[in-house]
Amino acid sequence: MENIIIRYSEKPKLNKPVFIEGLPGIGNVGKLAAEHLIDELGAKKFADIYSKYFPPQVMVQDGGLVKLVNNELYYVKNAGKGVDLIFLVGDYQGMNPEGQYELTDFVLQVIKELGVQAIFTLGGYGVGRIVDKPKVFGAATHEDLVKEMEKYGVVFSRGEPGTGIVGASGLLLGMAFLHDIRSVCFMGETSGYFVDPKSARAVLEVLIKALGVEVDFSELESKAKQIDAITARLREAEVKPEEPAAGRDLGYIG
Amino acid sequence: MENIIIRYSEKPKLNKPVFIEGLPGIGNVGKLAAEHLIDELGAKKFADIYSKYFPPQVMVQDGGLVKLVNNELYYVKNAGKGVDLIFLVGDYQGMNPEGQYELTDFVLQVIKELGVQAIFTLGGYGVGRIVDKPKVFGAATHEDLVKEMEKYGVVFSRGEPGTGIVGASGLLLGMAFLHDIRSVCFMGETSGYFVDPKSARAVLEVLIKALGVEVDFSELESKAKQIDAITARLREAEVKPEEPAAGRDLGYIG
Amino acid sequence: MENIIIRYSEKPKLNKPVFIEGLPGIGNVGKLAAEHLIDELGAKKFADIYSKYFPPQVMVQDGGLVKLVNNELYYVKNAGKGVDLIFLVGDYQGMNPEGQYELTDFVLQVIKELGVQAIFTLGGYGVGRIVDKPKVFGAATHEDLVKEMEKYGVVFSRGEPGTGIVGASGLLLGMAFLHDIRSVCFMGETSGYFVDPKSARAVLEVLIKALGVEVDFSELESKAKQIDAITARLREAEVKPEEPAAGRDLGYIG
Amino acid sequence: MENIIIRYSEKPKLNKPVFIEGLPGIGNVGKLAAEHLIDELGAKKFADIYSKYFPPQVMVQDGGLVKLVNNELYYVKNAGKGVDLIFLVGDYQGMNPEGQYELTDFVLQVIKELGVQAIFTLGGYGVGRIVDKPKVFGAATHEDLVKEMEKYGVVFSRGEPGTGIVGASGLLLGMAFLHDIRSVCFMGETSGYFVDPKSARAVLEVLIKALGVEVDFSELESKAKQIDAITARLREAEVKPEEPAAGRDLGYIG
Repeated sequence: MENIIIRYSEKPKLNKPVFIEGLPGIGNVGKLAAEHLIDELGAKKFADIYSKYFPPQVMVQDGGLVKLVNNELYYVKNAGKGVDLIFLVGDYQGMNPEGQYELTDFVLQVIKELGVQAIFTLGGYGVGRIVDKPKVFGAATHEDLVKEMEKYGVVFSRGEPGTGIVGASGLLLGMAFLHDIRSVCFMGETSGYFVDPKSARAVLEVLIKALGVEVDFSELESKAKQIDAITARLREAEVKPEEPAAGRDLGYIG
Repeated sequence: MENIIIRYSEKPKLNKPVFIEGLPGIGNVGKLAAEHLIDELGAKKFADIYSKYFPPQVMVQDGGLVKLVNNELYYVKNAGKGVDLIFLVGDYQGMNPEGQYELTDFVLQVIKELGVQAIFTLGGYGVGRIVDKPKVFGAATHEDLVKEMEKYGVVFSRGEPGTGIVGASGLLLGMAFLHDIRSVCFMGETSGYFVDPKSARAVLEVLIKALGVEVDFSELESKAKQIDAITARLREAEVKPEEPAAGRDLGYIG
Repeated sequence: MENIIIRYSEKPKLNKPVFIEGLPGIGNVGKLAAEHLIDELGAKKFADIYSKYFPPQVMVQDGGLVKLVNNELYYVKNAGKGVDLIFLVGDYQGMNPEGQYELTDFVLQVIKELGVQAIFTLGGYGVGRIVDKPKVFGAATHEDLVKEMEKYGVVFSRGEPGTGIVGASGLLLGMAFLHDIRSVCFMGETSGYFVDPKSARAVLEVLIKALGVEVDFSELESKAKQIDAITARLREAEVKPEEPAAGRDLGYIG
Repeated sequence: MENIIIRYSEKPKLNKPVFIEGLPGIGNVGKLAAEHLIDELGAKKFADIYSKYFPPQVMVQDGGLVKLVNNELYYVKNAGKGVDLIFLVGDYQGMNPEGQYELTDFVLQVIKELGVQAIFTLGGYGVGRIVDKPKVFGAATHEDLVKEMEKYGVVFSRGEPGTGIVGASGLLLGMAFLHDIRSVCFMGETSGYFVDPKSARAVLEVLIKALGVEVDFSELESKAKQIDAITARLREAEVKPEEPAAGRDLGYIG
């Protein structure tokens, strides 16, 4: 079988679209943010990506129906000030380094065909403690992008994060640079212990300024309140999880 | 060498056969169930599958003869109300995700050639405690299959199992769906500590209703009694195994 | 680069040669036995096998010269009652299942070209305790071989070893059977804690009967005495190694 | 995508150049040494090597710009007594055995095209304790090289290091030998707990004699003083790191 299979339900014609990646990762920050935007902007799925770089697994959905684990591409036309958007979301990132490289290269080819001019990747930045007002750290392929994003409050630290950015959010930037596609990564501060809708919101607030779109946050806010309630109870009980909850999403990182 | 090698001793001509998978897994529920059916219905082996995705290992059989670890295909014609059946059983599942995908794709190609119209995959659903009356959970590719199987007592829970189904039983469903083959997975509740003939019987009781065949259970019952005797002794001694006995069968799952 | 590279220094013409494998493994029993036979019979190296399935490593030899880790093929003509022999020895077995299968398939092709009619594979059978008089367990591809080897004192137990035979010694048998080459595996009982010349000698005593050759054992005996001295000191000190010394040779087994 | 991608910014014409490898490893001895030489001799980058055998990661540089992890090739013409040099440095070695073999083979092809006549690989030799005057151990492909290097104070011990040399520094020698390229490996003694500029200097002092070039060491000396200050504080506090700091650079070992 092919290493990666894509099935299109539709091949959208888009006008210089902007690509947004939100795969699972630390605190699921990127995933929450991208999925929220898909919901709020009414983006439409147009392709499924299957791969032997994903786990050999099906998800069981409501009603007992199965779905082979995958990544999915969505699009929306004319969002906000008129920008076309493509989204990449999914159940998993590639399970090993080779898979990460192959999947990233594959996605870059697909979105280049669709005319993508810029890339935003969304992720979390694990700090190992609960953060009340998460900052958004950034990294980019071009210097003018750094300056532009700083205007929206993004923090570009010297050599931060120290270990670099591991996984799809980083790799897309690194490989997009080789294809001369302008790209930015936003990383919301997060404990790493829980899925973190608050951090996702912080990331989104920056992203929507950069895109010139507007969205409602009430859904994310309600999720954030649930998580806050849980963490408050844990703090009282002085229970400290030994392992980050979202760690399994990047199990090959060691 | 080829990644996967198949050796046919016979190429049976079958009438819209139903395919049944029972590879090793949690509690070896699927394996026990499928092998019992093969024995009781007198199914005949027609192909051996070898692969470098299996461990580099031979089994030593009675009399000191070796057998390279493999998967095997059996068939029986005109079982019960006249249905033709194909079985997949074996020593191991693929040892890594790539192997799982490749082997599943390979098997799907083989059985499509043989005209397979429907798939049943059999497995265990580990609950971490000893179960007296194991339920049978289900997952399926199509909604009408869910409804039909519910008639036979199969439980389709909302998003159960939560982690999805990992391994051959799940992957066959997910990939069969991409090939438009109607498929159902039956998972018998099991502790995960022992091979579990009782759970295998629960799965079989559902399966034979779905297939319209009849089988004798005395062999499985006698195995179940042996296991019950062992677990009873363990309970008395308050010994609790630290690791599920059948865990090694899916060693790549972590 | 090729997955496996062979470099011949010579292409010997042999008369229905017998192939003997002695790669590293539990107690290095097979390696010690095969190397002893190579030395005593004056066998000559005729090929080096390099592979990316071996570790990325060079050995440093006397005088500071390096040697890329490899497997090596030796031959001797007209040994004992006139049999031609080929030996496979080396620094490592393949590091993962795929490597094991590929290397075994590769070796089988090489030795088939050289006209090999029979295979003996040599290994250890770890029992987890120090053995004074190691038995030799056997496994074979054909029933008449079992009977013949029993005459030489080899023990063929029902389903022993229970886990089958993992690694090159087993795989050669399993894959040779698919090529209709008659093969036997000898496994010398060994603790698994030390390299075990005594077990190697037990294996060799059976092998030379089967081959009809004669060899001197004084070299192995002197190695065995050294190991006995070490184990005696350890017993006195009641030191018990936590991990088998030779375990690293098959590090992928888990 | 290709397993390994090379991007040339320039294709230098060189006169029988000497190749020097200094990838990350124990104590980062080789990396520090090679980078120091690149700086002091004013060598110029002429190629980037990207690969899916590296981690799926970008480094974040000053100013928030990203760089896909890579290896880099530098050259300098007419250094010292007139020798042309090529350097290989980078963020990582290949992450698994296959990657190590493929990357080494790739580099050997590239440098053969550039006419390389000799290879020096630089690394550390971990001894597990802090060393005040690090010795430099050597290994080589040819006997006359051993004799020549002994003149410069390099120690060639019988079978030292006992485990052989694992990783790029060793593999380049082993594979260069198969291509008849004369090669030497220098390994500076190092604790393995810290990056070790002192050991790097010891290696360089030997290398520059062999090359006939001269360099200033003040930069390395100042780095060494910083490390000495840290280790002195640790000794006082009797803190002993449990794991070598540079171990992650060769995470697949061990």
